[in-house]
Amino acid sequence: MAELFGRVAIIGIGLIGSSIARALKENDVCREIVVGDINAAHGRRAEELGLCVAAHTDVAKAVDAADLVILCTPMSTYESIAERIAPALKQRAVVTDVGSVKQAAIKAVKPRLPSHARWIAGHPVAGTENSGPDAGFATLFKGRWCIVTPESDTDADAQAQVQAMWTAFGSNVVSMDAEHHDLVLAITSHLPHLIAYTIVGTATDLEMTLQSEVIKFSAGGFRDFTRIAASDPIMWRDVFLNNREAVLEMLQRFTEDLSHLQRAIRWGEGHKLEELFTRTRSIRRSIIEAKQA
Amino acid sequence: MAELFGRVAIIGIGLIGSSIARALKENDVCREIVVGDINAAHGRRAEELGLCVAAHTDVAKAVDAADLVILCTPMSTYESIAERIAPALKQRAVVTDVGSVKQAAIKAVKPRLPSHARWIAGHPVAGTENSGPDAGFATLFKGRWCIVTPESDTDADAQAQVQAMWTAFGSNVVSMDAEHHDLVLAITSHLPHLIAYTIVGTATDLEMTLQSEVIKFSAGGFRDFTRIAASDPIMWRDVFLNNREAVLEMLQRFTEDLSHLQRAIRWGEGHKLEELFTRTRSIRRSIIEAKQA
Repeated sequence: MAELFGRVAIIGIGLIGSSIARALKENDVCREIVVGDINAAHGRRAEELGLCVAAHTDVAKAVDAADLVILCTPMSTYESIAERIAPALKQRAVVTDVGSVKQAAIKAVKPRLPSHARWIAGHPVAGTENSGPDAGFATLFKGRWCIVTPESDTDADAQAQVQAMWTAFGSNVVSMDAEHHDLVLAITSHLPHLIAYTIVGTATDLEMTLQSEVIKFSAGGFRDFTRIAASDPIMWRDVFLNNREAVLEMLQRFTEDLSHLQRAIRWGEGHKLEELFTRTRSIRRSIIEAKQA
Repeated sequence: MAELFGRVAIIGIGLIGSSIARALKENDVCREIVVGDINAAHGRRAEELGLCVAAHTDVAKAVDAADLVILCTPMSTYESIAERIAPALKQRAVVTDVGSVKQAAIKAVKPRLPSHARWIAGHPVAGTENSGPDAGFATLFKGRWCIVTPESDTDADAQAQVQAMWTAFGSNVVSMDAEHHDLVLAITSHLPHLIAYTIVGTATDLEMTLQSEVIKFSAGGFRDFTRIAASDPIMWRDVFLNNREAVLEMLQRFTEDLSHLQRAIRWGEGHKLEELFTRTRSIRRSIIEAKQA
């Protein structure tokens, strides 16, 4: 395809950042890539892997002359990174991110950028439980959704360019309100992760004799939770701290529903269990029909 | 291999029963298979698929002259099936099952069998979210655990024969106390299923506009839960009713841990989240090392 950008700066070269670097190269989306990462070892590894022309531990250096800057770091770093890169941004540079909570991303980054910079928040709904520059791969975003959350003053060209990039990666791009995004992701992603972390934690607190058997017999259902609960700890800590309201709301609903089932088990009310279990089966069918399975 | 049994009666030709039929045939474990299923359509389908020489809706007819009888029905049917087949069992017939709760299986079946019959409870830790005679496949048990829970008066030859059958299917057979089995499975299988059913249920109760988006963006973590929550409703209803004590105990621990995390999110205590999320990651590594991933 025709190059969408000259220089792209990727800040944070972990699973998502390094997947973006690989996808940018594989799809000829830009002329060159520069990496900014406070972890010098990750920057060097990115250079070794040929993911960039240069890597800097100073993010301000990394964004120099970049037409597009993509934040791929945990959300707790957004404020300080935005402050640090602001004076170094090229005129009319496009700035985007990949964070899992959009209202908080906007609040952390936007007010710190210079008025000439063009900000558009984004969130590719894709990932694995692995981390670091070696974990990424170019097809991570293929066939997956990427959500952009423009605001009333978002530059239309900037949005179109960022969307074109995700489309080039094979993503299905949708645009929605940041608040709505945070609510939808709270139930489809944040709550499932919280629950998976919890149950795996509950299992690790069992007596040692039981613990080894939990691992041994994990194929019974537990295994699926351990995969989710192996996701990046810092990234997920930041997700929960930044989407607190929506996560607590969904958690409240979940807890009520779980208490209802607990009571049904205690009192032997089989029909209540059967009713729910029959209903949930149809949701799976909908997902298979929507080709997200 | 040398045939372990002459005639095998499979009671219930769903996912597990039909997988056993296929595995018996593929590994030449017996001379012939007879199916008993109150669902006449399933019995006919088993005949069409060539899984048996005959299928009966009367389970007493199905066990006639059988050297081995395998119960593969939901656990709520165990008592009535045991009563029905008891007078029809061949002298010294081996009777086993595949149910997910072993204390309840023993309690439901054993006292109803004639003294000449040889009972050994079993549980292959394997399955998929699909049901019915078409859903089974011969390799379902390959590389998976099969747990047998003998009692003090279990016939050693019967146990050895049943274990040899599972070994022929490619399973890793272990023997343990029924009470211990029920506790281990409560955390590795029953609680994960209960939680998955709950969260998928919580999602189906959302406003309609959110619901379609839950399906759309399910790749964020929710999808794994929907697969688990698509498992057979009757079978799982029976699991929870039959393993009530252990499930409620594990659920209590889980709920306490979830409340702890909820509080950490509400009060912004990131270090508590990070600590847990780091700890759970190592469990996943243990599972990968144990080759159950």
